[in-house]
Amino acid sequence: MAKNAILTLLTDFGTRDPYVAAMKGAVLSACPQAQIVDLSHEVSAHDIPAAAFVLAQACRTFPPGTLHLAVVDPGVGTQRQMLVGRFGGQVFLFPDNGVITYVAQSMPMEALHSLRNTRYVPPQPSMTFQGRDVLAPVAAEILNGLNIRQLGPTPDAYKLLDIAPAQGQGRQVAGRVVYVDRFGNLISNIPAEMLQGPLAEWDRLEVSCGGCAIGGLSGTYGFVAVGAPLALINSMGLVEIAVNQGRAGDVLKQGIGAEVVVRLRTANL
Amino acid sequence: MAKNAILTLLTDFGTRDPYVAAMKGAVLSACPQAQIVDLSHEVSAHDIPAAAFVLAQACRTFPPGTLHLAVVDPGVGTQRQMLVGRFGGQVFLFPDNGVITYVAQSMPMEALHSLRNTRYVPPQPSMTFQGRDVLAPVAAEILNGLNIRQLGPTPDAYKLLDIAPAQGQGRQVAGRVVYVDRFGNLISNIPAEMLQGPLAEWDRLEVSCGGCAIGGLSGTYGFVAVGAPLALINSMGLVEIAVNQGRAGDVLKQGIGAEVVVRLRTANL
Amino acid sequence: MAKNAILTLLTDFGTRDPYVAAMKGAVLSACPQAQIVDLSHEVSAHDIPAAAFVLAQACRTFPPGTLHLAVVDPGVGTQRQMLVGRFGGQVFLFPDNGVITYVAQSMPMEALHSLRNTRYVPPQPSMTFQGRDVLAPVAAEILNGLNIRQLGPTPDAYKLLDIAPAQGQGRQVAGRVVYVDRFGNLISNIPAEMLQGPLAEWDRLEVSCGGCAIGGLSGTYGFVAVGAPLALINSMGLVEIAVNQGRAGDVLKQGIGAEVVVRLRTANL
Repeated sequence: MAKNAILTLLTDFGTRDPYVAAMKGAVLSACPQAQIVDLSHEVSAHDIPAAAFVLAQACRTFPPGTLHLAVVDPGVGTQRQMLVGRFGGQVFLFPDNGVITYVAQSMPMEALHSLRNTRYVPPQPSMTFQGRDVLAPVAAEILNGLNIRQLGPTPDAYKLLDIAPAQGQGRQVAGRVVYVDRFGNLISNIPAEMLQGPLAEWDRLEVSCGGCAIGGLSGTYGFVAVGAPLALINSMGLVEIAVNQGRAGDVLKQGIGAEVVVRLRTANL
Repeated sequence: MAKNAILTLLTDFGTRDPYVAAMKGAVLSACPQAQIVDLSHEVSAHDIPAAAFVLAQACRTFPPGTLHLAVVDPGVGTQRQMLVGRFGGQVFLFPDNGVITYVAQSMPMEALHSLRNTRYVPPQPSMTFQGRDVLAPVAAEILNGLNIRQLGPTPDAYKLLDIAPAQGQGRQVAGRVVYVDRFGNLISNIPAEMLQGPLAEWDRLEVSCGGCAIGGLSGTYGFVAVGAPLALINSMGLVEIAVNQGRAGDVLKQGIGAEVVVRLRTANL
Repeated sequence: MAKNAILTLLTDFGTRDPYVAAMKGAVLSACPQAQIVDLSHEVSAHDIPAAAFVLAQACRTFPPGTLHLAVVDPGVGTQRQMLVGRFGGQVFLFPDNGVITYVAQSMPMEALHSLRNTRYVPPQPSMTFQGRDVLAPVAAEILNGLNIRQLGPTPDAYKLLDIAPAQGQGRQVAGRVVYVDRFGNLISNIPAEMLQGPLAEWDRLEVSCGGCAIGGLSGTYGFVAVGAPLALINSMGLVEIAVNQGRAGDVLKQGIGAEVVVRLRTANL
């Protein structure tokens, strides 16, 4: 067995039904030492962009060699292929539907293979539960030490979601809300690294969301009054619109796709 | 310690309150090596039929010797006895209230014992939390290697839920929806094995649910248009009514108990 | 590594977003042998009293030396300090915001230290996610064997919530509902130990909640009719108002803060 037998699971199965446990059982049957960690099972059903975001944000802290298995897959049972890749020293097992997008954008790809080798990839007894019947056994093989190169050839291409990155033009950067967390925080796709050049003076910036002025960048939630909106660089290094001890999404009536703009405050205002 | 110290937990406790964690602590205090896996804690409060279904479906993939602890028990504190049994090589610890029904129907019973031996079964300090006070310590003993025969005598009888199995008559099989999953899929009690004889021509079958015609059997969700209803053999080997990327229960306004009929399509229709 | 590397996590993060998994990854990166157990992640956002209650109730069953990490913290990023303490043989890592209140009231404090030693306490790259950036790495150090005395000096004081304990006066004890669980059970802060002296005759007691008469103390839920209210000593040793197979909070229209009174039944009523 590889030293690190950590496996994370990301699904949209929820935790009420037998599906997640059935996958864990299938992994443990072939690799009893697996340390299984839930990334999330509460992604909205079939919401690939949300799953892609959670995957990329949650995987970062895990040790090298961790295996991440993502099963958010409206196309289950159709001809979409399954892939395994190594990005930034971690391994990802996923359907080729774009769920890898944010990982691929932020971590260097070191290997990518189609799951084709029938020696390791089981034929599919059920057409509806590839997570249990195909991916779990393959995950156990990888945890047991299988080199992912054995699983199949490198594909010619793989799918990425069509998500426009934030755009900077001089004294302004414009992006969009790409994720709303359970606190109602509106998380944009504007990374702190884009606030450079003329925008490097963070105490002179002003932020708007959906056309609504939020104010400058605050250090953290508790720096504004309870109930007040604020903008901050969040723990993911992204511009986030929040309300101290409140729900920004509800208070501002904004959600996924809302435009977020960061600009230099003009002198005379 | 037994080699396999996997313990699964199935409760209707939810995950917000301290109850599940208190049970895990009690197990780990007596068996620190236990590998605890959540089957589900989101079964509706006191819903024994749903718990019985989840237990039977989720346990199948676990390795031999896995211990499954089920605590969905409206009768807690009353005279209902606690049982431990081995079915199909796996071990189940459960209140005698019918939660074992689907397991007992689908896996061969190899042993069954009442929890009576006061050497291993603690007296009950709290009348309301047998999961923590009685079942968790007994589970730890079993994980530590105790032979379940030591726990007490084989009972004369044990409770099974009164769930009528699907009925086949020639060119038709009729069953009922027995579980609705979080995707709104309507899962019937008609196993694929009943679609034999005249019904073996799966491409000539038609399915109805609650009197509403669904159509033939599809291979998987993605084989019909988004939003369209379909019937399929699901990952549990049961006839299921679904809507591709939608909620069949809501779309068809059907739920637990709805009649599901599979019949041969007649030539002139 | 210490023999017992059990770490429990208590947060108000929910399980949908990447936050909990990111904390687990940070722990596992520095202590791959950690056995991580979820206490709860479903505490209402910023609800310190509920978190304090869950922490104190769930921790009791865990083995000595277990490390409990609590991150329910509306003041994240502000000047509130982080503490580590040993209470009753278990170790708690928590923000100094009162979340330790019920633990401190019920378990003897054996040590308390501020997280100050920069050799072990990381500087904070993100001001918004101390759980991942500060507490998880410190937790891993403790699991790896670090003596908590190394982490910093004992503080002069620490915060406790201002929760009035139940009051007894002769033939009557009065307290309040301090927690409502997912079954709708109303849990008071009246411990069974206060039902002594004239109140020791439990079969002569009567209980009211929010001015509404409930009746005497029952042994367990199943001792009254389905749908009937009852009072009982619950699994935590506290007076609880429940409805057999129902939701007491909804049926009685009572919640957090409702007065609960236990008194001797007068002879002529």
